[in-house]
Amino acid sequence: MTTTAAPIGRFPIPEINDLPEDIRQRILAVQEKSGFVPNVFLVLAHRPDEFRAFFAYHDALMDKPGGLSKADREMIVVATSAANQCQYCVIAHGAILRIRAKNPLLADQVAVNYLKADITPKQRAMLDFALKVAFEAYAVEDEDFEALGEHGFSKDDVWDIAAISAFFGLSNRMANVTSMRPNDEFYTMGRG
Amino acid sequence: MTTTAAPIGRFPIPEINDLPEDIRQRILAVQEKSGFVPNVFLVLAHRPDEFRAFFAYHDALMDKPGGLSKADREMIVVATSAANQCQYCVIAHGAILRIRAKNPLLADQVAVNYLKADITPKQRAMLDFALKVAFEAYAVEDEDFEALGEHGFSKDDVWDIAAISAFFGLSNRMANVTSMRPNDEFYTMGRG
Amino acid sequence: MTTTAAPIGRFPIPEINDLPEDIRQRILAVQEKSGFVPNVFLVLAHRPDEFRAFFAYHDALMDKPGGLSKADREMIVVATSAANQCQYCVIAHGAILRIRAKNPLLADQVAVNYLKADITPKQRAMLDFALKVAFEAYAVEDEDFEALGEHGFSKDDVWDIAAISAFFGLSNRMANVTSMRPNDEFYTMGRG
Amino acid sequence: MTTTAAPIGRFPIPEINDLPEDIRQRILAVQEKSGFVPNVFLVLAHRPDEFRAFFAYHDALMDKPGGLSKADREMIVVATSAANQCQYCVIAHGAILRIRAKNPLLADQVAVNYLKADITPKQRAMLDFALKVAFEAYAVEDEDFEALGEHGFSKDDVWDIAAISAFFGLSNRMANVTSMRPNDEFYTMGRG
Amino acid sequence: MTTTAAPIGRFPIPEINDLPEDIRQRILAVQEKSGFVPNVFLVLAHRPDEFRAFFAYHDALMDKPGGLSKADREMIVVATSAANQCQYCVIAHGAILRIRAKNPLLADQVAVNYLKADITPKQRAMLDFALKVAFEAYAVEDEDFEALGEHGFSKDDVWDIAAISAFFGLSNRMANVTSMRPNDEFYTMGRG
Amino acid sequence: MTTTAAPIGRFPIPEINDLPEDIRQRILAVQEKSGFVPNVFLVLAHRPDEFRAFFAYHDALMDKPGGLSKADREMIVVATSAANQCQYCVIAHGAILRIRAKNPLLADQVAVNYLKADITPKQRAMLDFALKVAFEAYAVEDEDFEALGEHGFSKDDVWDIAAISAFFGLSNRMANVTSMRPNDEFYTMGRG
Repeated sequence: MTTTAAPIGRFPIPEINDLPEDIRQRILAVQEKSGFVPNVFLVLAHRPDEFRAFFAYHDALMDKPGGLSKADREMIVVATSAANQCQYCVIAHGAILRIRAKNPLLADQVAVNYLKADITPKQRAMLDFALKVAFEAYAVEDEDFEALGEHGFSKDDVWDIAAISAFFGLSNRMANVTSMRPNDEFYTMGRG
Repeated sequence: MTTTAAPIGRFPIPEINDLPEDIRQRILAVQEKSGFVPNVFLVLAHRPDEFRAFFAYHDALMDKPGGLSKADREMIVVATSAANQCQYCVIAHGAILRIRAKNPLLADQVAVNYLKADITPKQRAMLDFALKVAFEAYAVEDEDFEALGEHGFSKDDVWDIAAISAFFGLSNRMANVTSMRPNDEFYTMGRG
Repeated sequence: MTTTAAPIGRFPIPEINDLPEDIRQRILAVQEKSGFVPNVFLVLAHRPDEFRAFFAYHDALMDKPGGLSKADREMIVVATSAANQCQYCVIAHGAILRIRAKNPLLADQVAVNYLKADITPKQRAMLDFALKVAFEAYAVEDEDFEALGEHGFSKDDVWDIAAISAFFGLSNRMANVTSMRPNDEFYTMGRG
Repeated sequence: MTTTAAPIGRFPIPEINDLPEDIRQRILAVQEKSGFVPNVFLVLAHRPDEFRAFFAYHDALMDKPGGLSKADREMIVVATSAANQCQYCVIAHGAILRIRAKNPLLADQVAVNYLKADITPKQRAMLDFALKVAFEAYAVEDEDFEALGEHGFSKDDVWDIAAISAFFGLSNRMANVTSMRPNDEFYTMGRG
Repeated sequence: MTTTAAPIGRFPIPEINDLPEDIRQRILAVQEKSGFVPNVFLVLAHRPDEFRAFFAYHDALMDKPGGLSKADREMIVVATSAANQCQYCVIAHGAILRIRAKNPLLADQVAVNYLKADITPKQRAMLDFALKVAFEAYAVEDEDFEALGEHGFSKDDVWDIAAISAFFGLSNRMANVTSMRPNDEFYTMGRG
Repeated sequence: MTTTAAPIGRFPIPEINDLPEDIRQRILAVQEKSGFVPNVFLVLAHRPDEFRAFFAYHDALMDKPGGLSKADREMIVVATSAANQCQYCVIAHGAILRIRAKNPLLADQVAVNYLKADITPKQRAMLDFALKVAFEAYAVEDEDFEALGEHGFSKDDVWDIAAISAFFGLSNRMANVTSMRPNDEFYTMGRG
């Protein structure tokens, strides 16, 4: 199999050492932590200002404290990215979901049909809303907030679900337009 | 993880030893070959006559000689089943596709977005047509046959593509209605 | 009107006498019963193994005893085939529905808009579910079984509705791909 | 069969003799010509001013001279009304189409899937455009006029096709909202 | 800005003085009242009989007494025309809505997303139904009438809502096919 | 009219003086420049980190040099936000588009149906692609880049179009979920 020679995106990939220092440091840090550089860092580095804003947004949503567990956040990413047919995000965040949830089956289940996944009713409500934000945000109404409230989500949790769906909607679109290729490593991570 | 205790479908699962002899033999044969009994055999055995017709149809399409390789046939199954959001078929046939194609990445790529998968233009045309059969068969016209012909598909190959898409469309619907659960074994098979 | 000279399908039509004996006998039997050979038998005979599996499946669903009347089963076929825009199935099974239901109006009503047809609330629930299986099987859930249960359908009746919708979804796709032409006889049968 | 006792619409049906004289005369004339009063006349007579405008519009499009034959105009009505799932219009105008085209099969073919009907390429282009007007009029562009021109349609023929599709779109909506029931007579007219 | 030189439609625009006298008088009357001739009068005058039927229908729905206020009727026009992507109707009737409702914001709100507009629950129910008539009239059922009744709409009000949605659906389609251009005057009318 | 008393969003609006200094300064700067504080600043200030990332991303796309004029960028925002039915973005960026393009008609035209707007073929191609990114990014392929190249767009221009569509897709979703209300001032700005 020679797929690793495939291009990782449609746009020029900068040399890491030619990048602005803050971006170079971020990439080296993730490489040290993960053992490889996820391609999203390389593809988006073509635009340093957008790179910085993208990862600042990402961190503000995915790394902050809050009512949603880290596994829940990744589950939102996988479900919405699958609906948006984004190969990079489903495969990369599917790996992270397997690890965060300590469950080797969940990511594939959520990606294909979350209605049949091994999740709780509360997680089901969360994903229903995340998908509504992804495809019919114009129709979000008070009833949606109330329904999530009945499952124990606070109003700020609802913001979080919406923001993660919306932010990865942006990410999915850029990944599809740039033909961002998932690293081979992601396919097997966390499969136990 | 206790997911293996989850029910494998909404309908009663017969005891293998209570089944008609021909069905029992088929199930024992697949168990011997695979090391486990794929749940589709157990769920459909609730209806012996339909079981027999289903697997006769399956074998007529998937095991016969013809212009499509076995990997190509599985690729059609994965692409159309993903579009139909059928968890059982994507996960079980994704495993078979990895094995038949000797490629650990292909199934996940095809399931998420076959337009971005590592496939040839001929395979792309094959999947475009399979999806058209799955969602807009009413609009299939001479131009579709011609376009496939230009890629080297014979008229009987076109029948095969259509029939595989149509048959697994039936399978996808029954799997979704019965809540057929993929065996845990499928998730990791062929990941190399 | 010279439409009877139109081709009955895109693929070669075998001579009846050249067919395997079991298929030849089946075709002769239907001809004796109906006074003509419905084109589906001729078009599918191009593939004897698939022909056998197709009609075995058909008979397992349409001829067996069970909670659904024969008219109800035909009504499912007409409603789902109309939604799939399958000319052969709507026109051929529309004829059978008129005969089975002893109602010359019902088939056309169901084909155009079953929500306005002269049917009972129980039949309406049956068709709603059949259409859900045809177009959104991924979203079938316990609530669907419960709603049908309230109308008096057993769990196995639900399987029957789903399987008829799914099987004729396969049939609709093959009829559309092969450009299967309904016999002229069907148009006027059962119009009283 | 007691279907003839079914209500012919959701709104009150006026007594013919209580109607304004011009409307009464129009209804008597159609009754004399057809042998029965098509229900559209009775349902719409609930609103005399709208009745007059409706039939003035109808006559301006369907009875005037022009490049489209009367059969072609009815074919547009049947194809678009089927797509709008309007039982009254498909069944009533299906009958008229059978008569105008002197073809007992055409109406059912066009209603189920006009792509498979016994029509000419010019008629196919006409129906493609009529459906585009019905569902995506916002996307009609110069290219559509050019494509129809290549089939021999004048610019005013294009207006006619569009206007018939648009007018019967109005008619379909009113028939569905009023639950307008087709007269039993239409089902068998022109079946030869 | 030279946009006023842009053509006002795809079809020939007749000279006002060459038009039949009744049409000429109608156009002069609207010009006197509005200070300009809305382009819909000029574009449709290409077909005098259709012009007469169109405006007779329009007046029967928009100028008659009834349970719906004139502002409500214009609101239906704006909401459905926006969903049909009809530039002429949204911009022209948006102006009229601003005037009738004495509200400079309402038309733009309704055009973009009526779910977020400053309207009452009763108006919201009215627009929900108008949109259902525009896009899913085949699914209108007794429940729709009941829901509107609970908001205080009479059965004849429901006819009015449906008829306005259906009539402007016709108008939207003709405006899109003829590329009817809104007069520049409409953009600023009623903005206060 | 008392609409100005309407709430500007579903979430708490912070006092400007309680905000972190950098956010407070940004808000005061825009207030000084525009004469009012656009509500997006107040609604998003509920989440300072997301606020910073959002506006950093915004500025990286909308204020940087590049092949797209500022009017073109606003046109992309209006067209995609209208398709996403985002009241805030259509009304606020419609105002900015009128000003940037020095054209009082363009924003309303683009919002209702950009296919009928007074734009160049190059702008049409730009908006076609922006909408494809908004709704079918999974299907973006080399052909899209080539088609845009033929209109004179560089590869980096294509990134810009895609990124603006994707970023405002995020913005549209957040505005809809938070029920962000456009300031009254936007409705009349730039109408000449």
